[in-house]
Amino acid sequence: MTKQDANTLNIKDIAFLNNIKSIAVIGPSKKRDYFFLRNHAESFNGNIYAVHPTIKEIPGFPQENIFPSLEDIPNEVDFAFIAVPPSQILNVIDDCVEKGVKLVTVFTSEFSDAGTEEGFKLEKELIKRAQDKVRILGPNGMGLFYPKIGLAWRPRFPIIAGNIGFIAQSGGVCNIAIYSAWEIGLHFSKVFSFGNGADLDFVDLLYFLSNDPETDIILCYVEGIKEGRSNDLQKVLAQNKKLIVILKGGQTKTGSIAAETHTASISGDNRIWEALFKQYNLIEVDTLEQLLFTARLFDCYGIFEMNNVAVFSISGGYGVILVDLIEKEGMNVPSFSPDTQSQLREKFFLPGTSSNNPLDLAAQFFFSKTVYEIIDLALSDIKIDGLIMDLPSFYFSRHFRLKTDLAFENEMIESMSLGHKHKKPLIPIIQHVNCPDERARVSKKLIERKVPVFANPLEVIPLLSKIAKYKRNLQQ
Amino acid sequence: MTKQDANTLNIKDIAFLNNIKSIAVIGPSKKRDYFFLRNHAESFNGNIYAVHPTIKEIPGFPQENIFPSLEDIPNEVDFAFIAVPPSQILNVIDDCVEKGVKLVTVFTSEFSDAGTEEGFKLEKELIKRAQDKVRILGPNGMGLFYPKIGLAWRPRFPIIAGNIGFIAQSGGVCNIAIYSAWEIGLHFSKVFSFGNGADLDFVDLLYFLSNDPETDIILCYVEGIKEGRSNDLQKVLAQNKKLIVILKGGQTKTGSIAAETHTASISGDNRIWEALFKQYNLIEVDTLEQLLFTARLFDCYGIFEMNNVAVFSISGGYGVILVDLIEKEGMNVPSFSPDTQSQLREKFFLPGTSSNNPLDLAAQFFFSKTVYEIIDLALSDIKIDGLIMDLPSFYFSRHFRLKTDLAFENEMIESMSLGHKHKKPLIPIIQHVNCPDERARVSKKLIERKVPVFANPLEVIPLLSKIAKYKRNLQQ
Repeated sequence: MTKQDANTLNIKDIAFLNNIKSIAVIGPSKKRDYFFLRNHAESFNGNIYAVHPTIKEIPGFPQENIFPSLEDIPNEVDFAFIAVPPSQILNVIDDCVEKGVKLVTVFTSEFSDAGTEEGFKLEKELIKRAQDKVRILGPNGMGLFYPKIGLAWRPRFPIIAGNIGFIAQSGGVCNIAIYSAWEIGLHFSKVFSFGNGADLDFVDLLYFLSNDPETDIILCYVEGIKEGRSNDLQKVLAQNKKLIVILKGGQTKTGSIAAETHTASISGDNRIWEALFKQYNLIEVDTLEQLLFTARLFDCYGIFEMNNVAVFSISGGYGVILVDLIEKEGMNVPSFSPDTQSQLREKFFLPGTSSNNPLDLAAQFFFSKTVYEIIDLALSDIKIDGLIMDLPSFYFSRHFRLKTDLAFENEMIESMSLGHKHKKPLIPIIQHVNCPDERARVSKKLIERKVPVFANPLEVIPLLSKIAKYKRNLQQ
Repeated sequence: MTKQDANTLNIKDIAFLNNIKSIAVIGPSKKRDYFFLRNHAESFNGNIYAVHPTIKEIPGFPQENIFPSLEDIPNEVDFAFIAVPPSQILNVIDDCVEKGVKLVTVFTSEFSDAGTEEGFKLEKELIKRAQDKVRILGPNGMGLFYPKIGLAWRPRFPIIAGNIGFIAQSGGVCNIAIYSAWEIGLHFSKVFSFGNGADLDFVDLLYFLSNDPETDIILCYVEGIKEGRSNDLQKVLAQNKKLIVILKGGQTKTGSIAAETHTASISGDNRIWEALFKQYNLIEVDTLEQLLFTARLFDCYGIFEMNNVAVFSISGGYGVILVDLIEKEGMNVPSFSPDTQSQLREKFFLPGTSSNNPLDLAAQFFFSKTVYEIIDLALSDIKIDGLIMDLPSFYFSRHFRLKTDLAFENEMIESMSLGHKHKKPLIPIIQHVNCPDERARVSKKLIERKVPVFANPLEVIPLLSKIAKYKRNLQQ
């Protein structure tokens, strides 16, 4: 690729990626029981080949798909996962260029990440030998997880295509994100672990996802960008129309040193990143969990602004705690409109309850028909933007001498799905309370109905003000 | 009790509570399938009687222990749980005085909590009729959970005596706390739900726990104290020698109104509470979960000050995230001492790892013997106060083509228990990552070894700076 002038975008195009049909794993390791080969073979939809100079047989893998070199493969190879020793990497890249492979992941590490002169030199040579003909994810990266075609570097990655794109340098962070997202019902379009980012870097991948028709929301864990890429990043952000959520690693002094050790990243001045977040309306979060939870909220309810919140609690005390947390985050728990309030009052018939906001259901929670009506009324109030509720999972256990027929549970699931009827977010906080099976069962049913489930108010309430701010900035 | 002068402490003494031997449930409800009677009968160690004017038989409950009135019971009754309609409460209290019952819970609501003149009047009359001869928890409260003698108001409360006392007005908050504590290995000495606090209030119960030989740590959820009790509260706090952690409900405008609706509490000026927290070195938290997690940290490691933290990560990226969170909370992730550093360097032999702080184990994590040695070295460094590690639970699943023999798991448990050897906190963050069984199994083993387990860094890191501040203030 030739150097472009200052007005054009310096981006390496990988739009071809959506047409990957055949892959090779180069350097399967008998010692590791062919870990990466098995992982890719587990779910890939198209042709998969193993390339190794001497191995002729791999248990469980078709012998006719094992070749001593890339050039021996009689068909095209679109993508290759490379895990060979550093000493062999240059020859393998030459072979990839020769074969016309479009994209490779270089899993091999000890390039610039090693911090040695030798490592930097090898990385530079790797890029040179790729001749801009084969694009590289890595080195020191896990590469590409693309569920739609079953391209996966780890076992049991969830092969369910979604609309969330994820970019991270760290393969470990990707692994945790992918398995965690599965648990909360979040599905990815593509996940990139680009490691040292010697060729394809954060800016290239962000541009790709920003223009990828299969991606609606972009999540990023970024430790830094390379020198000279700041203008390109700004151009990519300027043309972007999608929601971007960023976790910036290396914000503190020791954090930035650790990031450099990890992926030779220059974290950069925090103020520059803060300015970018503000100028381009990016949502910034502090943890990987917040990154996923934010995406889950958007995935369920789109872009919403929750300023005025109804609180629905079974325990008056927990309701008070929720109100405090909500108001401390700058949102309100307002009174209901007079009309809603008088209708709500009629629905409450037990002592120890309150029909005001926060709603305190107490024992009336067991009357699941009125629960439905109460939530329906609260969400229909024009003053209310959404509802947060607390619901300990012991209410769904048959061991607690409570009302636990399946009709009750199903009616509660219906009630908790009412956000979609009103197009307003309804957010249940279902505490674990030592009922793992009940919680898993109810959460699964809610996830199927696109209702996000949390376990702890601090997991979600601080995110709601971030999302509201995002929407306000969008409208400006 | 006569009014005392300004220098003495105006406290209702309930030290007799540690000698409860027999209890009665007054007003068992057939309609509710004798819910509260069954719950108390499930685990109480001593004699338990049911009192109801007409009921002669209760399935599963010994007929000879059912009596039409308290006075018909041939033995002493130390404690009674009362759940009768408000119209009958005064007669029942008269009977309790007559019988010499020392303590009752009044579960019945619609007293001052109803906010009606009638309710306030009834509550006043209730106290008058008790004549300071029977002490009251409530009305509108769940009363007393005392695991040592199996006194429990709900089914499946964990009947394991611990050293944590808990005071809350809200019964619902107690329920969530008790079941949640069980899950994280925390055990209570006593839990009080005192509802409206018409007789025994927050100040009395705090005094009791502060002097209770069975209690070492005191947790409180408090929505407010009654007028005129502020001086007594200060005297109780001044004589207290135990760790107190407080969640103050009703800190915001709407929160304080909700607290008043809930338990007729006057939340009071936040500045007054803030001054108390500071003057008496109380730890303040924002959620019920933080209340329990703080206790769990003390329960495992005593009073510690973690200023200089070693970070142990399997994913370099997650390590960077942890470092940022730790340093943002005012703690440090320092370099190891030169001697420790050089010894650590010798333990690392795989590429893609880092022997600096934060330690990045990467694939070397599978060599569980060196993991043990690395953690042992890090914690032996005089510069290091404790260690935080991240450990996704898929490493313990046999479905992930990783090293999952039981020897590996047991060696990891040993490594994660090293905090106790060095008398420094070691805090594992074990992400769920869709492996519920593996996580539950490993957590259980760690809990048995008094190692606290978290799922998400924001659950624990902000608490560490609160605990460090507590210890610093203690030493002043």
